[in-house]
Amino acid sequence: MTELYAIGIDFGTLSGRAVLVDAKTGEVAAQAVKDYAHGVMETALPDGTKLPADWALQHPGDYLEVLYEVIPAVMRMSGASPEQVIGIGVDFTSSTVLPVDQEGHPLCLNPEFVGEPNAWVKLWKHHGAQDQARRLTQVAAERGETFLTYCGGIINSELMIPKLLETLELAPEVYEQTECFMEAGDWIVRNLIGENIRSAATAGYKALWSKCDGPLSSEYLKAVNPKFEHLITEKLGGKLVQQGEAAGRLTKAAAERLGLRAGIPVTDGHLDGHVAGLAVGIDGPEKLLLVLGTSAGAMICSEKKVAVPGSFGMVEDGLIPGYYCYEAGQSCVGDMFNWFVKNSVPAAYAEEAREKEVTVHQLLTEKASKLKIGESGLIALDWWNGNRSCLVDAELTGMFLGMTLSTKPEEMYRALLEASVFGMRKIIDNFEENGIGIRQIYACGGISRKNPLMMQIYADVTNREVFIGASDQCPALGSAIFGMVAAGASGGGYDTVAEAAAKLGRVAAVSYKPIPENVVRYEALYQEFLLLHDYFGTGGNDVMKRLRRIRTAGKGTDNE
Amino acid sequence: MTELYAIGIDFGTLSGRAVLVDAKTGEVAAQAVKDYAHGVMETALPDGTKLPADWALQHPGDYLEVLYEVIPAVMRMSGASPEQVIGIGVDFTSSTVLPVDQEGHPLCLNPEFVGEPNAWVKLWKHHGAQDQARRLTQVAAERGETFLTYCGGIINSELMIPKLLETLELAPEVYEQTECFMEAGDWIVRNLIGENIRSAATAGYKALWSKCDGPLSSEYLKAVNPKFEHLITEKLGGKLVQQGEAAGRLTKAAAERLGLRAGIPVTDGHLDGHVAGLAVGIDGPEKLLLVLGTSAGAMICSEKKVAVPGSFGMVEDGLIPGYYCYEAGQSCVGDMFNWFVKNSVPAAYAEEAREKEVTVHQLLTEKASKLKIGESGLIALDWWNGNRSCLVDAELTGMFLGMTLSTKPEEMYRALLEASVFGMRKIIDNFEENGIGIRQIYACGGISRKNPLMMQIYADVTNREVFIGASDQCPALGSAIFGMVAAGASGGGYDTVAEAAAKLGRVAAVSYKPIPENVVRYEALYQEFLLLHDYFGTGGNDVMKRLRRIRTAGKGTDNE
Repeated sequence: MTELYAIGIDFGTLSGRAVLVDAKTGEVAAQAVKDYAHGVMETALPDGTKLPADWALQHPGDYLEVLYEVIPAVMRMSGASPEQVIGIGVDFTSSTVLPVDQEGHPLCLNPEFVGEPNAWVKLWKHHGAQDQARRLTQVAAERGETFLTYCGGIINSELMIPKLLETLELAPEVYEQTECFMEAGDWIVRNLIGENIRSAATAGYKALWSKCDGPLSSEYLKAVNPKFEHLITEKLGGKLVQQGEAAGRLTKAAAERLGLRAGIPVTDGHLDGHVAGLAVGIDGPEKLLLVLGTSAGAMICSEKKVAVPGSFGMVEDGLIPGYYCYEAGQSCVGDMFNWFVKNSVPAAYAEEAREKEVTVHQLLTEKASKLKIGESGLIALDWWNGNRSCLVDAELTGMFLGMTLSTKPEEMYRALLEASVFGMRKIIDNFEENGIGIRQIYACGGISRKNPLMMQIYADVTNREVFIGASDQCPALGSAIFGMVAAGASGGGYDTVAEAAAKLGRVAAVSYKPIPENVVRYEALYQEFLLLHDYFGTGGNDVMKRLRRIRTAGKGTDNE
Repeated sequence: MTELYAIGIDFGTLSGRAVLVDAKTGEVAAQAVKDYAHGVMETALPDGTKLPADWALQHPGDYLEVLYEVIPAVMRMSGASPEQVIGIGVDFTSSTVLPVDQEGHPLCLNPEFVGEPNAWVKLWKHHGAQDQARRLTQVAAERGETFLTYCGGIINSELMIPKLLETLELAPEVYEQTECFMEAGDWIVRNLIGENIRSAATAGYKALWSKCDGPLSSEYLKAVNPKFEHLITEKLGGKLVQQGEAAGRLTKAAAERLGLRAGIPVTDGHLDGHVAGLAVGIDGPEKLLLVLGTSAGAMICSEKKVAVPGSFGMVEDGLIPGYYCYEAGQSCVGDMFNWFVKNSVPAAYAEEAREKEVTVHQLLTEKASKLKIGESGLIALDWWNGNRSCLVDAELTGMFLGMTLSTKPEEMYRALLEASVFGMRKIIDNFEENGIGIRQIYACGGISRKNPLMMQIYADVTNREVFIGASDQCPALGSAIFGMVAAGASGGGYDTVAEAAAKLGRVAAVSYKPIPENVVRYEALYQEFLLLHDYFGTGGNDVMKRLRRIRTAGKGTDNE
């Protein structure tokens, strides 16, 4: 019998990759990766036009280059024939958004707009729309908009709507000439299937769309800016595609270019974090998905529809159809550890790491592993980039406490690992206090595979078993699984997302179980964390915010 | 007319030095320095006997080697004749204490005791007597001993009495055979004048002696340990010598060995920090002496006798006869900056410093100088080694607050400089609130000459002019001035300490004046410091102490 495969394509921040996955076993038969030629454009456009601080743009041509290279590559490497490929799944960073014309061509490639920053792809971490986000939040709060309770009470500047309002206000001619603003993931799908669609899940998390209530109302948008009134009807066309549905069929032109068979099903463009849930086998509620990278995402499915304060996304059918998927997260995790390694580790450690042929992260982790819990006397608040959940406060800043003259870098590093886990424990407690149960944790992302110390700390601090995704390509694998669901059982795949996830999702053989003695020790430290968390985070002492004001006043402008 | 000179000898932690000073101009005609051969013995005695953690001993032979080398050296270098030298002043670290026999020989040099740690010199920073210090404090508090109000309510383990109680309890045979426990400074004087004397000022600060109330009572000492009852009468003999008096005259034997004239006056053994006050010209009240090194001392004279909570020493005639001299301080200043450079500065900075041929401290200071006040958004609590004043709490620990992903090492370094100055501002405010006025600041010690940024911060944060000692040898110079006062005007010197200090003390041409705009900016940051200081330091949140408990429990033993 001939094997059947699905292709998963995952577009990250700096590169894109494809995997070819066996539809029966979930094994990855081949994978290929390619960096974006223009990377992230933070200081200038390709034509030299300077960009303001906080901007982060990309070149849409890079995505197509990746697409047309990595898919043929996995086909070539695996030796699979086009007939063996039953479907394609796509995921993308989000909200990464671009304006296109009637033919689906990016406006930035139109000579008229090459020098206009707002015509280019605004990457998820583009932070130019902070003022717009503030105003959107304020008006929503004044009007008592329901959607606000499902996004943590605050519209983050990384969402799609603030980025579009920014374009309207800074570059009205771009807004005017835009036929459709698209999530980059949906735009990739358009290039495969030849029509505009819109991922319902992505729209739910990033465009504040709701299966129950529909899109944002034109009254609300008008109240923010009269010219924004018809955004939904005039600029956000395309049918909504639910999780697990096929968005469309691969066109002949695309099939030829990719070396695939025309007519195979293609999914909508998923969120790159969420899709990993399928790859680790999450098929229903009480299983928390932790995506650990530069920041951390925490996704949990539940039958219940409730407003969880401090979580920032709640979307019906957001991951597994039939469940509400809640999202919370931390705005810096790996970023914070990298800050530490870059700014606070002495030359002697860098030297020792070189000699041992390990990274500085590995060296610090090795040294930190030898410490007993609480031995350093240190505690930290992990707010180097604000607090996304549960305080939803970007103005908070980091803290280290407990240093003595004998404090060592590995002790401070471990305090950061612990602070990050304490922050996640707070998120978990908050879910449970609001009726969203969590029994187990499924972690994926670089840190989950690279830092066993931190994974054990997750188990000990949360008193829950922690499973690690078996693949180092969880998002791409998850997309491939979605591709199999789009194909359906009749097409060689699966009929439901839950079934496919249960069948194909994989965790590593080794899981991390809470060690009772450690659980007790960490409970005491977590209580100290909570005390500081509440004191600095909920108004006991707003010193962090006042220092930020002083800082801004000192600089003349806040560069953050 | 032939110049007249006095010699000042200053014994520090790692070396001793002599200066030959012109009695008319205060100019240093020659100086010589020599390291102690055995340095600080922290792990083992010369015979290999291991030392417990927290111990810090010295070899008394090293002091004599220094004495007999540096004095002949300055005579040789200057070409001065013995007839030109009118007196000798001595200062020493304190309480640095040793047991001697009837002939004044150190017990540690007696073959019977070479392997007994308690027979050696206990250096000021020997911390083996913490349990004794705690019990001495407890009994004094229970008995309502007056002296406790003048030492900050706590008997520090660095004082003389705990160190002697430790000897009694750990090595009763040493205690038994000791004819006299001597401050090392007084022991040097004994070697010069041939008799036991006791510096009244040193006894005041370090043995809790008071001009008004006399020594500790035998009832109190008995209550601590019955065998300690007769400490004062049996083990602490020798006449008390006041500031400015001659302790005695140079013996013939010593004069021959040193190449000096027999019969010249020799002072008592002063405190190395305090004597610097004369070198910078402090001649009365309202002039704060700041001695900035690994830690910081703050000394201020006043006509008033009051109990200043949080200051840890108040001695009548303690610096200038006729005034009460109050002492407060910070337990780590340079130590904290060194901790930072050693533990928290990345390789790239070390490399840049090497290329620019500056120290890492200089590089960080240069970079920090370019920051505006408050620009970093950081604030720190300078408690890396506890808080000596005004909280008198060794269990407090350090804190950094305000970090973001863009925080740089120079910003954290500057936050430490500022925290240290904020701590001193609190000390100054505390003095003033208790009626001890402070108009100007006179700083000496390495940092005062090396770090103009920090000196400007002192001026801006305290809103007072900061003068810097002109000499890099302020303690030795101060001792020489005391030597001139011991000689008296009739002997070619001066009749009063105040007159000599006013005439010979020197500050650098450049002083640091508060910059009004900076004063306002720092006032806002200081208020934030105070809020955190009080929250963590006065019971708002005892997290630092609880973490210390957890830490000790985790380690099995507290190694600090």
